[in-house]
Amino acid sequence: MLVNGKQQDTIAIMDRGFQYGDGLFETIEVRENIPIFLHRHLQRLNTDSQRLYLPKLDLDLIRTEAKQLCENAGNAVLKIIITRGTGGRGYRQPDEIQPTRILSLHPFPQYPQSHYTAGIVTRICNTRLGLNPTLAGMKHLNRLEQVLARAEWQDNAIHEGIMLDFNGRVIEGTMTNLFYAKNGELFTAKLNLCGIAGILRGWIFEQMSVIEHDFYLKNLQQADEIFVCNSVMGICGVRELENKSYKLGEITKKLQFILENEKQKQVALCN
Amino acid sequence: MLVNGKQQDTIAIMDRGFQYGDGLFETIEVRENIPIFLHRHLQRLNTDSQRLYLPKLDLDLIRTEAKQLCENAGNAVLKIIITRGTGGRGYRQPDEIQPTRILSLHPFPQYPQSHYTAGIVTRICNTRLGLNPTLAGMKHLNRLEQVLARAEWQDNAIHEGIMLDFNGRVIEGTMTNLFYAKNGELFTAKLNLCGIAGILRGWIFEQMSVIEHDFYLKNLQQADEIFVCNSVMGICGVRELENKSYKLGEITKKLQFILENEKQKQVALCN
Repeated sequence: MLVNGKQQDTIAIMDRGFQYGDGLFETIEVRENIPIFLHRHLQRLNTDSQRLYLPKLDLDLIRTEAKQLCENAGNAVLKIIITRGTGGRGYRQPDEIQPTRILSLHPFPQYPQSHYTAGIVTRICNTRLGLNPTLAGMKHLNRLEQVLARAEWQDNAIHEGIMLDFNGRVIEGTMTNLFYAKNGELFTAKLNLCGIAGILRGWIFEQMSVIEHDFYLKNLQQADEIFVCNSVMGICGVRELENKSYKLGEITKKLQFILENEKQKQVALCN
Repeated sequence: MLVNGKQQDTIAIMDRGFQYGDGLFETIEVRENIPIFLHRHLQRLNTDSQRLYLPKLDLDLIRTEAKQLCENAGNAVLKIIITRGTGGRGYRQPDEIQPTRILSLHPFPQYPQSHYTAGIVTRICNTRLGLNPTLAGMKHLNRLEQVLARAEWQDNAIHEGIMLDFNGRVIEGTMTNLFYAKNGELFTAKLNLCGIAGILRGWIFEQMSVIEHDFYLKNLQQADEIFVCNSVMGICGVRELENKSYKLGEITKKLQFILENEKQKQVALCN
């Protein structure tokens, strides 16, 4: 782990990331030493840090450190955390903010191949997402909702939980964004009130037309196909949602195919 | 600072308190070496830790450590943080949770006497509180809303910012609970959708009849008196809210008086 460029695995207790969750993070797939979609992750960090009134990030420095850390990583997960650093009085930020920058490598989780060829099993979480336009979309460090939602089940046969907001709208998985297709059209939730605007979600918007709208469980029940995605797991069809079965659909398969090509291209170009 | 009973001022980066804000905290006034309302703070930690599915806390141990740490503290602030510790996979908590327990002492902030005799100056924050019954009331580590609200002003002549929720209801200050009186009756916000159920707020409920209800800025504008409170600052009248002036009211003064007596009693009993 690198903390502001130095190898250490601890952080000051007074860091505002610890005291208040005052920061952001990115979770990035590393394939054959290459951090996939690194540019997009850094762009999101940049955008979200502006929303949190953090000083301008040195993206070149983060990119350099990320590449150094991944040089011999093989297949791994790279996590980047940016916090508002230490200082200030209570919630009040210090006059001069010196952000803390943490890059860490973690083992790549071994998802079974069936996640991609058959799909995953999902459930509906009781924990709802709160409504907060000020924070909606950001991958910030305030993640208690996801922790509580994920604590609802222990059964390893269930791979993801789907979360609604307090208005009953379907938003996303505990660690993924969610899409569904109906009659050849692709839909996903608007993230104006809650949810995280994932990197793969944004990438999918560039591959095909996606309709962002408010939708409910009945829309999922009537869907032709459902998939979830995140930067580490990639794109996985949903084969079961609360006892209803779905087949791996053509749109899911097509996006999986384009994504795999894109990743291979990035690995080939950068190595 | 004591981390699980050992003196250290750092925490593992992998601690879930840092990774996700997965924990709780208490901020306690220490007067003449005595942590005021310690019992109430520990009770809240206990209650909130159950809401977060944390293992049963060893309150006796925390109490013992708190008293040890405060033995020669004089007047200070004691902060207690409890997190879900390290481990787990992503948001998923580990099968065996070993919470992290942090106790730290900080200088007591020197509030001017006029805060109590004349009142403080407040403003209305643009940052709104999100709506989330699952987390409402708890003093958890996900505090980005308060950080963003407090970042709205730099003017030291303004002492507190008042926050509304996304429905326009007045809820609380960035670091205080808020009460107002009208025609001899005392009112405060319901905290079913957001807000922190402060220790002093709970104590005030035991001193006199308080009406919890939904209220709006117009109620504050028409109030006879307004005050805010927290465990460190105590009870401060609001003498100005966005250019409207208020006088220090009789209910505020009465509660300040009872609170001061209560603190002196605790100090006398425990020393």
